[in-house]
Amino acid sequence: MRFDHAGIATEDAAVLAERYESLLDAEIAHQETFDGMEIVFLDLGNGYFELLEPVAENNAIARYLDRRGSGIHHLALATVDIEQALARAERMGIESLDDEPRPGAWGHDVAFLHPRDTGGVLLEFVSTN
Amino acid sequence: MRFDHAGIATEDAAVLAERYESLLDAEIAHQETFDGMEIVFLDLGNGYFELLEPVAENNAIARYLDRRGSGIHHLALATVDIEQALARAERMGIESLDDEPRPGAWGHDVAFLHPRDTGGVLLEFVSTN
Repeated sequence: MRFDHAGIATEDAAVLAERYESLLDAEIAHQETFDGMEIVFLDLGNGYFELLEPVAENNAIARYLDRRGSGIHHLALATVDIEQALARAERMGIESLDDEPRPGAWGHDVAFLHPRDTGGVLLEFVSTN
Repeated sequence: MRFDHAGIATEDAAVLAERYESLLDAEIAHQETFDGMEIVFLDLGNGYFELLEPVAENNAIARYLDRRGSGIHHLALATVDIEQALARAERMGIESLDDEPRPGAWGHDVAFLHPRDTGGVLLEFVSTN
């Protein structure tokens, strides 16, 4: 599977996006308010940084910021067949946090795997179909 | 700058590589013992996961594992002019952890930036020159 994006939890997506734009020569490819978060995708040419700022209380990113502070939250892989990818994970005994793909940011179906089963890394499958 | 790799700290790079190979349809592109670490690069087609297992005591990855457990350690961007990239970071007031590029894994020169100045994310520049 190809790299799709790295999700980064931040207290201020606009400020961090501006900083990364200058530092990394990256442009904003997409932004939206989704699921209680301000989300900014920065284009790296072969993938994205997804900046995630909580705007509702008590969502997963707000809890992450409380617990660990700003930083890398997850890694996402692009898959053309997300159902098959989840079925394979299940056969390997890897727990999915989503029983089935659900609507994610930027109009893609997504599913997350339990980091306990993936070396402590929160992995996301993103459907590119 | 393009995405180069995500660095993942792990207690056992071989076991995690085998798991990711199956889960993500990724193949091992390179492995080496470097700077007190067993390092495995998994090829995602448009970038890599770099699995980092400490084999010496008290290196940065061993300390990271003690403090936070296994998981995502850093994000690396490819640059054709790492000196210019560091100069730009300095002009932006972003502290570099390396005064100048130093030899990194897989024969590339690298430099890390201080996460305090980059939204809590440990960013690495990788010279592809």
